[in-house]
Amino acid sequence: MLDELFKKLEFLFPEMVALRRAFHEEPELGYEEVATPAKIAQYLTEVGVDVRIGVGGRGVVGVIRGTRPGKTVALRADFDALPIQEETGLSFASKVSGKMHACGHDGHTATLLVLAKVFMTMKDHLCGSVVLIHQFAEELAPGGAIAMIKDGCLEGVDAIFGTHLWSPLPVGKIGYCYGPFMAAADRFDIQIQGKGGHGAAPHETVDAVVVASSVVLQLQQIMSRNVDPQDAAVLSIASFQAGGAFNVISDTATLSGTVRTFCSNVQTHIVQRMEQIIKGVCEAAGATYTFSYERGHQAVVNDDRETKRFAEVAQTISDPENVEEIKPVMGGEDFAYYLQRVPGTFFFTGAGNEEKGIVYPHHHPKFDFDEDAMLIAAKHLGAVALAFLHDEW
Amino acid sequence: MLDELFKKLEFLFPEMVALRRAFHEEPELGYEEVATPAKIAQYLTEVGVDVRIGVGGRGVVGVIRGTRPGKTVALRADFDALPIQEETGLSFASKVSGKMHACGHDGHTATLLVLAKVFMTMKDHLCGSVVLIHQFAEELAPGGAIAMIKDGCLEGVDAIFGTHLWSPLPVGKIGYCYGPFMAAADRFDIQIQGKGGHGAAPHETVDAVVVASSVVLQLQQIMSRNVDPQDAAVLSIASFQAGGAFNVISDTATLSGTVRTFCSNVQTHIVQRMEQIIKGVCEAAGATYTFSYERGHQAVVNDDRETKRFAEVAQTISDPENVEEIKPVMGGEDFAYYLQRVPGTFFFTGAGNEEKGIVYPHHHPKFDFDEDAMLIAAKHLGAVALAFLHDEW
Amino acid sequence: MLDELFKKLEFLFPEMVALRRAFHEEPELGYEEVATPAKIAQYLTEVGVDVRIGVGGRGVVGVIRGTRPGKTVALRADFDALPIQEETGLSFASKVSGKMHACGHDGHTATLLVLAKVFMTMKDHLCGSVVLIHQFAEELAPGGAIAMIKDGCLEGVDAIFGTHLWSPLPVGKIGYCYGPFMAAADRFDIQIQGKGGHGAAPHETVDAVVVASSVVLQLQQIMSRNVDPQDAAVLSIASFQAGGAFNVISDTATLSGTVRTFCSNVQTHIVQRMEQIIKGVCEAAGATYTFSYERGHQAVVNDDRETKRFAEVAQTISDPENVEEIKPVMGGEDFAYYLQRVPGTFFFTGAGNEEKGIVYPHHHPKFDFDEDAMLIAAKHLGAVALAFLHDEW
Amino acid sequence: MLDELFKKLEFLFPEMVALRRAFHEEPELGYEEVATPAKIAQYLTEVGVDVRIGVGGRGVVGVIRGTRPGKTVALRADFDALPIQEETGLSFASKVSGKMHACGHDGHTATLLVLAKVFMTMKDHLCGSVVLIHQFAEELAPGGAIAMIKDGCLEGVDAIFGTHLWSPLPVGKIGYCYGPFMAAADRFDIQIQGKGGHGAAPHETVDAVVVASSVVLQLQQIMSRNVDPQDAAVLSIASFQAGGAFNVISDTATLSGTVRTFCSNVQTHIVQRMEQIIKGVCEAAGATYTFSYERGHQAVVNDDRETKRFAEVAQTISDPENVEEIKPVMGGEDFAYYLQRVPGTFFFTGAGNEEKGIVYPHHHPKFDFDEDAMLIAAKHLGAVALAFLHDEW
Repeated sequence: MLDELFKKLEFLFPEMVALRRAFHEEPELGYEEVATPAKIAQYLTEVGVDVRIGVGGRGVVGVIRGTRPGKTVALRADFDALPIQEETGLSFASKVSGKMHACGHDGHTATLLVLAKVFMTMKDHLCGSVVLIHQFAEELAPGGAIAMIKDGCLEGVDAIFGTHLWSPLPVGKIGYCYGPFMAAADRFDIQIQGKGGHGAAPHETVDAVVVASSVVLQLQQIMSRNVDPQDAAVLSIASFQAGGAFNVISDTATLSGTVRTFCSNVQTHIVQRMEQIIKGVCEAAGATYTFSYERGHQAVVNDDRETKRFAEVAQTISDPENVEEIKPVMGGEDFAYYLQRVPGTFFFTGAGNEEKGIVYPHHHPKFDFDEDAMLIAAKHLGAVALAFLHDEW
Repeated sequence: MLDELFKKLEFLFPEMVALRRAFHEEPELGYEEVATPAKIAQYLTEVGVDVRIGVGGRGVVGVIRGTRPGKTVALRADFDALPIQEETGLSFASKVSGKMHACGHDGHTATLLVLAKVFMTMKDHLCGSVVLIHQFAEELAPGGAIAMIKDGCLEGVDAIFGTHLWSPLPVGKIGYCYGPFMAAADRFDIQIQGKGGHGAAPHETVDAVVVASSVVLQLQQIMSRNVDPQDAAVLSIASFQAGGAFNVISDTATLSGTVRTFCSNVQTHIVQRMEQIIKGVCEAAGATYTFSYERGHQAVVNDDRETKRFAEVAQTISDPENVEEIKPVMGGEDFAYYLQRVPGTFFFTGAGNEEKGIVYPHHHPKFDFDEDAMLIAAKHLGAVALAFLHDEW
Repeated sequence: MLDELFKKLEFLFPEMVALRRAFHEEPELGYEEVATPAKIAQYLTEVGVDVRIGVGGRGVVGVIRGTRPGKTVALRADFDALPIQEETGLSFASKVSGKMHACGHDGHTATLLVLAKVFMTMKDHLCGSVVLIHQFAEELAPGGAIAMIKDGCLEGVDAIFGTHLWSPLPVGKIGYCYGPFMAAADRFDIQIQGKGGHGAAPHETVDAVVVASSVVLQLQQIMSRNVDPQDAAVLSIASFQAGGAFNVISDTATLSGTVRTFCSNVQTHIVQRMEQIIKGVCEAAGATYTFSYERGHQAVVNDDRETKRFAEVAQTISDPENVEEIKPVMGGEDFAYYLQRVPGTFFFTGAGNEEKGIVYPHHHPKFDFDEDAMLIAAKHLGAVALAFLHDEW
Repeated sequence: MLDELFKKLEFLFPEMVALRRAFHEEPELGYEEVATPAKIAQYLTEVGVDVRIGVGGRGVVGVIRGTRPGKTVALRADFDALPIQEETGLSFASKVSGKMHACGHDGHTATLLVLAKVFMTMKDHLCGSVVLIHQFAEELAPGGAIAMIKDGCLEGVDAIFGTHLWSPLPVGKIGYCYGPFMAAADRFDIQIQGKGGHGAAPHETVDAVVVASSVVLQLQQIMSRNVDPQDAAVLSIASFQAGGAFNVISDTATLSGTVRTFCSNVQTHIVQRMEQIIKGVCEAAGATYTFSYERGHQAVVNDDRETKRFAEVAQTISDPENVEEIKPVMGGEDFAYYLQRVPGTFFFTGAGNEEKGIVYPHHHPKFDFDEDAMLIAAKHLGAVALAFLHDEW
């Protein structure tokens, strides 16, 4: 049965590539997806999958019911893009200014669609059902997963699997991890309120650009001085917006960014130190501030049994040397919430390729992935789903 | 003749206020002025002034020719607004989002228009001519003055006078200054190029927000350490733009701001130190940069003789105690260029009023001025013009 | 035999305390120890141990030869103090201004001396030999261990054990760790050369205090931005010396500090980033610098087999709940070098006690430890030595 | 009479040089002067001057009474050195480690001594008296001037003159200034109290080096953002002391420095901003602090009439082109206090010489001055004293 699955996937690989490129050209940000879920629903419908749209808002859920009775396994792919201006120069680069599939979700979607098409052709041999979760808004808290779960996407589901195309890992590699795998990913927003005025009269102002720059630099000390060096954590200020005219001292500056942690004590300590630093720096300057901290996706914690199942399945597909137990990563994923409800595992499908110049990190304006990785991802997702349904390993 | 001038101005003060408020509601940025010069030209034409439009681009020049022969004096008012979101709550607040008359140019324009109307009624007693220079784009380098001069606005002009409604000075006060009065005002733009990436993986990036914040703080040291404390100078970073999504480390950050000096040695030293600091901080981080420095309006240098004439005229109009010789200010003005061609003086008309809550600095979102100041300005401009034409003082 | 050992140690505990306090009152810095090794040698000689002095410079090595044949096990205690002004207010506080036993080496020494005395009384039952390594200069690179090893202190030794009294761990607890346990501990020195001058004329100087402060803050970014958050590492600037008179801008500033890592790639990356940052910040200011980086103690890597032996021995002595496998720590130890030559393990003996107010970290002016920990340390060291010699576990 | 004065001074110039070099070799810090005043007193006594020692503590006052009746004029020279390690390589460099005459007070002293010797030879032609004020502790607040005035050094004095050998001015030049000439010079001391600990465990500490470095950088913003750019002011942090051992995070850091202003409003604003910044930065880090601010020498304000007298006298001695009205300087001088009691003027005697490599600023380890300047200083001081006594100009 695996043979059949793999052959059909290989046969349809050109379609997978075409789908991915089409999605890539038309990126939509989280919570703004319209055309993307419509295309997904249309494709699934055309290949005969039962489809529910608008799940949790903008999600699409398909169900493939095998002819033979059995358990239910879910596979998930996310489909939102990022507010980044693409600089890849690809022939199928984003046609939308300021938006880009810079994290590979286009590939996730294409992979799962073609896998669904193949599974549909194998329905008669299938014990149980496969649920296809096409999720919106993975990049933005609170994220689509929670909303889709509330809206029933996991009902009757016994296990879930998902993957991320991962460019830091060379194509051909598969990375899995027991237990905590991806970090809790929080968002913060800081607004500094100074006092504006003429650029020539700083002494009559409280210069928000200088205050906010001081905040940025002082916040670096949380990682260098306040967090136990043995605790993995990150604080990044991603956005700094202040001022307009070159000769008007800005009265406000707005910072936003993300904190990543694996442990709630560390998370709490960081929030406290942030507030203390922002407060102190603002008071030093005579500025005021607002600080909001939104706890985002919780940590992704893989199930031991399903991770083991996956690792063993993977070693039959890929060269066992290429199937690696890897360290946790600081990135967050709302796949976390599925795993809080049902067992499963989330793994990385290597997608980088130095020879092809595919070397840029996720979320970079030049990010790309090796499209061969989609075929590998499809095989592993498909195989582990069958293994679960047929109780192998 | 002064009596007549003053009475007529007082009589038309409500019109002056109405004009100012109308301009205030419809601010236009420098180099984008369309409706404003059209309204000015219409008003001048309606009161009978000969008008030339599109002078130097968007300027309006009117000429009032006295019946009797004599010299020619120019009076200038600027009419551009600023990219600031108004927060005054005034009934006649800006109707244009993000734009505001936050420097009083609406008042300058209304003042000069009504003064023109009055002068027209006195043409028969006038020796010589009065040229009305309604200037666009004072806030933005290179500024409208240079273009209007090139386009002939000073042809035949023997002297020029201008004023700024000045809220740091209480209404009722007049401030004048011999020699250097307003600073050279330059603009700089800095672009920091780091390497973007995922907010969770800072070690794979060069974080442009952190680099640019370091640049902001290190640039503060130019004033505190590198410029002779006896030399007045300012360096303000007015704008800091970086990033978008909260979880994407920004690959670039863009800073812009202004430098003010009275002396070209100091100016040159500051530029050198800026480049050295930006270069060093970027190299320390592995970032690159571009730095452009645009020398803006040169220093306003008042003519001794015409300044003396103005001071003496002013003491006959205002209580002599209210006519003050004041210190130079750091603000720039492209009135500088008129004074490089013809003698004249630029003075401040007090426009602040604590009792009325008019306390915010120029370029502040809550900036306002006491409208009584317009009448005072009109009287002083009118009187010094007559004094010049009739060779008094 | 353990019973006898423990009873005798308990009986001599007052002597252990008295010894510790005597050492505490007379601290000597690394490479300056004179009185301390003399006292150690005298004590060991008096209890009948064969003593060699001046080992590797200032070390003392004793040998207790059991009557019965067998293997040789070494136990090590370090005896140097720190350049810290004691603020404990203890009755036996340091009598030497600016020097203090702020890391518990006084306790290590007293523990091993009394243990030696007890072993001497048990010689007839002992199979093999116990080597007592009283080491000088643990706190200062290159440290006494390398010199003592070169001078033969490990000749014939089959295994080595050592402990650190550890105040972050409550008294009663024992902490052990397989593999990498303590970090590589390096030292760096930075000298910033600016240009001095009068405090009133900063523009004629390059202010070394400001440059060095910028270096301190920019170096914080190595941990927050440049090191993989999953890699444990530390960079601390411990000393900043600049200037004298309040009105003379200092031409130089001297920084020194430490870097801790577990992995040589991380170590190398940190050194490169340090140099890049120091260079960039100095060039930004027109200063020059020297930067020296001295790789210090390498990482302490415990032997798996001997660590297992120790953990099992410990669980027979202490309540097994109190014997914990702990995370590695960032502190360095030149015990590393012994473990590079012979198998063994280094463990922590809990020595903190909140109820008694013993809460200050190592190297703090108020550092102290619960003296009961010395008895516990002696029992565990003694027991594991016997277990090794008698091949138990 | 001037001719005689000048010829005698020229004749004795070698003695002046020898005296200066002898003082240079044996610098003594303020409030520690013992040998210096003894040598001064001995010299004056030997040439026949009436001497009072221990004036105000360590000062020496001599009186030369002219045979003819008249007014009394005082001349002042200071004699303390600085805590700087000399790096000039001069044959007569300081023999005292860490101390140096780096501000030219050795030259002031030699100048006044030889002038006294010459005046003694001219006593019979002198109308009135010359008081020689050899002052201790000019560099350190509160300074010797106040104490010497309290102890009567100005009793009966009608006017006072003094000079500073000034290396930024080329030898041959004389600089004078009406009104405010030298700044108020204050001292501050800041102690940051963090929490010490082991260099490997920053998260258990509050790192005083990092906090104090942040304070240093944030304080730069007072000049760049908070003081009116038209107000001359300086804030310099001259000393930063923290830590000892390279692996012990320091619990304290001590900063000291100076503030210079001409106006008490600015002075008060700076002190307020300093406190606000130190407080905010410390609170941001969880550190505490003490901040003491000691108002030092007040501004030197020259008397208009005596300054005019001096300028006119100077133009008869030096080429008038070399006698310049100069801008005020930021340096402080306790000559201020003499001028608060009696009229007079303080002037600069040019002492730099690029050709001779005499280019280092005052208070620099390589500071030197052109010894020819001493002769020039002696002539001008002597001439203005005579002019005052004989009521010329």
